[in-house]
Amino acid sequence: MLKIGDFQFHSRLLLGTGKYPDFDVQKQAVEVSETEVLTFAVRRMNIFDPVQPNFLEKIDLQKYRFLPNTAGAKNAEEAVRIAKLADASGLCDMIKVEVIGCDKTLLPDPVETLRATEMLLEEGFTVLPYTSDDVVLARKLEELGAHAIMPGASPIGSGQGIINPLNLKFIIEQADVPVIVDAGIGSPCDAAYAMELGADGVLLNTAVSGAKDPVKMAEAMKLAIEAGRLGYEAGRIGRKQYAAASSPKEGISVVE
Amino acid sequence: MLKIGDFQFHSRLLLGTGKYPDFDVQKQAVEVSETEVLTFAVRRMNIFDPVQPNFLEKIDLQKYRFLPNTAGAKNAEEAVRIAKLADASGLCDMIKVEVIGCDKTLLPDPVETLRATEMLLEEGFTVLPYTSDDVVLARKLEELGAHAIMPGASPIGSGQGIINPLNLKFIIEQADVPVIVDAGIGSPCDAAYAMELGADGVLLNTAVSGAKDPVKMAEAMKLAIEAGRLGYEAGRIGRKQYAAASSPKEGISVVE
Amino acid sequence: MLKIGDFQFHSRLLLGTGKYPDFDVQKQAVEVSETEVLTFAVRRMNIFDPVQPNFLEKIDLQKYRFLPNTAGAKNAEEAVRIAKLADASGLCDMIKVEVIGCDKTLLPDPVETLRATEMLLEEGFTVLPYTSDDVVLARKLEELGAHAIMPGASPIGSGQGIINPLNLKFIIEQADVPVIVDAGIGSPCDAAYAMELGADGVLLNTAVSGAKDPVKMAEAMKLAIEAGRLGYEAGRIGRKQYAAASSPKEGISVVE
Amino acid sequence: MLKIGDFQFHSRLLLGTGKYPDFDVQKQAVEVSETEVLTFAVRRMNIFDPVQPNFLEKIDLQKYRFLPNTAGAKNAEEAVRIAKLADASGLCDMIKVEVIGCDKTLLPDPVETLRATEMLLEEGFTVLPYTSDDVVLARKLEELGAHAIMPGASPIGSGQGIINPLNLKFIIEQADVPVIVDAGIGSPCDAAYAMELGADGVLLNTAVSGAKDPVKMAEAMKLAIEAGRLGYEAGRIGRKQYAAASSPKEGISVVE
Repeated sequence: MLKIGDFQFHSRLLLGTGKYPDFDVQKQAVEVSETEVLTFAVRRMNIFDPVQPNFLEKIDLQKYRFLPNTAGAKNAEEAVRIAKLADASGLCDMIKVEVIGCDKTLLPDPVETLRATEMLLEEGFTVLPYTSDDVVLARKLEELGAHAIMPGASPIGSGQGIINPLNLKFIIEQADVPVIVDAGIGSPCDAAYAMELGADGVLLNTAVSGAKDPVKMAEAMKLAIEAGRLGYEAGRIGRKQYAAASSPKEGISVVE
Repeated sequence: MLKIGDFQFHSRLLLGTGKYPDFDVQKQAVEVSETEVLTFAVRRMNIFDPVQPNFLEKIDLQKYRFLPNTAGAKNAEEAVRIAKLADASGLCDMIKVEVIGCDKTLLPDPVETLRATEMLLEEGFTVLPYTSDDVVLARKLEELGAHAIMPGASPIGSGQGIINPLNLKFIIEQADVPVIVDAGIGSPCDAAYAMELGADGVLLNTAVSGAKDPVKMAEAMKLAIEAGRLGYEAGRIGRKQYAAASSPKEGISVVE
Repeated sequence: MLKIGDFQFHSRLLLGTGKYPDFDVQKQAVEVSETEVLTFAVRRMNIFDPVQPNFLEKIDLQKYRFLPNTAGAKNAEEAVRIAKLADASGLCDMIKVEVIGCDKTLLPDPVETLRATEMLLEEGFTVLPYTSDDVVLARKLEELGAHAIMPGASPIGSGQGIINPLNLKFIIEQADVPVIVDAGIGSPCDAAYAMELGADGVLLNTAVSGAKDPVKMAEAMKLAIEAGRLGYEAGRIGRKQYAAASSPKEGISVVE
Repeated sequence: MLKIGDFQFHSRLLLGTGKYPDFDVQKQAVEVSETEVLTFAVRRMNIFDPVQPNFLEKIDLQKYRFLPNTAGAKNAEEAVRIAKLADASGLCDMIKVEVIGCDKTLLPDPVETLRATEMLLEEGFTVLPYTSDDVVLARKLEELGAHAIMPGASPIGSGQGIINPLNLKFIIEQADVPVIVDAGIGSPCDAAYAMELGADGVLLNTAVSGAKDPVKMAEAMKLAIEAGRLGYEAGRIGRKQYAAASSPKEGISVVE
């Protein structure tokens, strides 16, 4: 079970809702993925419209917990304001702090992320900050009380997978709250790798919505995350420089 | 469906039977893996004993196809002799040519592998040669008539995963017969990666039998191979140098 | 020329002075390296002793600029205190901010590094902060006025080389001050790689002092940094998925 | 000293002569590189013309040993024929066996390479076969009597660098003749890496001739190969998972 704040989930996949070819494909991908947590940018919500936000119109809202993010915020104050809008919408079980510090790389601003996390925790939110893989920064976020840490594997939407497994491992080893690898996952093996490093979950969007067949990729990701988690629990073999026969050498006499 | 010669399989995992902690664990791991093809070294078979070979004593022999290997052979003639022993045992649906050319690395001998493949094909075997990832060698094996090509990911039992994905990709692209990645797979993400490159299957042994919990790892590998295959079919996103937002930039006005 | 604050250097190698087998080897390695900047931990200086600090006793102090570091500091205030001690010693042309936030990984504390950098700049020091490869953090350090940015390639003394070339590249591209890759360099090719990414310099210690032959390794590093710089300036070929013949195909008729 | 057959060289760089912007740049690059061995495709030679082959017109032929290659050969017989043409031209001190088995990847044909090597050795040539990094194949070439082994780092002209350092290391460890890494080198750090793995030399062409500034890149490569060789001899530090301070922890009291 993945426990974040007061929530418990069977699935360790947190899925984004953006950039699908259409809402039917989105709906199918979400269902096939068996995710229990949907994430989206608050700025995409049609807040002042009485009807459901368009981009969730096909989604059965009763079945999911929502993790809106503060994308668009340039500093902590904006992030808090966005979080409150999300909260007012009723679709905010948890909040993902996303304060981008660089438009080209979409990498997060460590200082504003720390501040936003602190401010939102004081407001009583369940707070999951998206962060770089800076190991000490991750610990500071946890010390503030963040309910999970979400280090990026590589830049958002880049599909480059896990560039620095060492930092992720350090972050995972030091953490007492869940570590959710967020951003950069490109394919199922990336997701499995994150889980094998000991991550508690994976958040992804583009890898599914941007695949040629998003529904099939959603299923692939579901299985990969299960596979990676089981692999982590099962305890993989060590890496050896040289080879090791899988059969004992004795008994060879039969062929001589 | 994975088609090798006249055989068809739902599972794309070929599983070894060596070095499990005990036969009960082996049996459970084999079952959980849902493999349909078991592989083993002929030299481990208790050929001249009327009773079942010990290391398969817990296995329901009706449920599997058998892919014995010629490990121990130093040249083509020895490989053929070992294959005939396997055939005589009744547990030989297909034969894996394994002619090791270096005791330290357990890497295969390209010349003797070619010769053994040719000789065994002439004898009417369904032949799957274990080979290095030499791209031209792989094509020569296919031109001889090999029923599948089995390039190694890294040295046998090393758990180093796929060192040269480029060569594997070239081998897969040029092949009209199945390509089964064999040797070196260490963890589920390695297996998923092989499948995402377009491999038709994965053969592994130590990664499961040597895991702390072989049964759980067998399940992990089953899922990883399914995930990787689905991911391949689903068409992954490209890798981008820079980031790409998963939400459109418009709509941000709501928060300003 | 490498320009840091008011200083100019022909050499792009900044060399540490710690952990050599003895002071003679240290002296030789320093000379062979042709470095113009020596770095050391202030806490190793024998401050209250009227004679020269032992670990520099063989060094001709007139020939170098000194970049003491604040290792041992747990926060900005301690870093400032250490820097002032260094300054008082007369061996402090520039100061390397090193505020470690994790004893196991020796990775830096981003918040205290920012604060220390700001405080030391106000005191008039030429400040070079050692930082993680967090891209936005690096820009904030530059915005404060840091005279150079020193992102780590991998943990101090680990010899793991450059784990995340993408982040280093982003840091280099956005910087208007020199970027010196610091920590983790293990071998000459690591140093060359840093320079090829566009780094302005490399700081290293253990890779030289811990080599079997530190003097020879010092020479290797000198050459590698020159090679990497020239390679950067020369503009390397692109990476191609497939092969490209180095000879034109025409003219082949002569052999047919 | 690099010893190949009866030849001895100070330089460990073997340089190709193809695809330079013009012959003046080629001449300068060759000189700056300090190479002593020039390589070229025989099919580019203007054999039946009484005047010097055009592409070497600016080269002082007295200063170099020549290593023509058999590019264009599809089998051993063609390779031998090409080698004899080279020999007749007077510009053939050693012969590089290059029998390509795949036009898309330009990867070598292992069987024809073995045959060509054997036939050319019988003819009395000093023979350097270009081969894949198949470890057992490399040993067979040496057992035939090849004067050096030239495994590719990655496909010709791809600039992908060393994809499989493990196989190169195995080839180097088992060899009693020089191992020259050939093909795929893209930048100085690739060349340094090859040398640090223990290679005896590096052969490259496109990485220099295709650089924006070939002359500067030639110098970079010269330095990188020297750096890598010195690094290999100097004995690099081991890679550690965690960090190791470069200064001893004692002595810290001064700052407290």
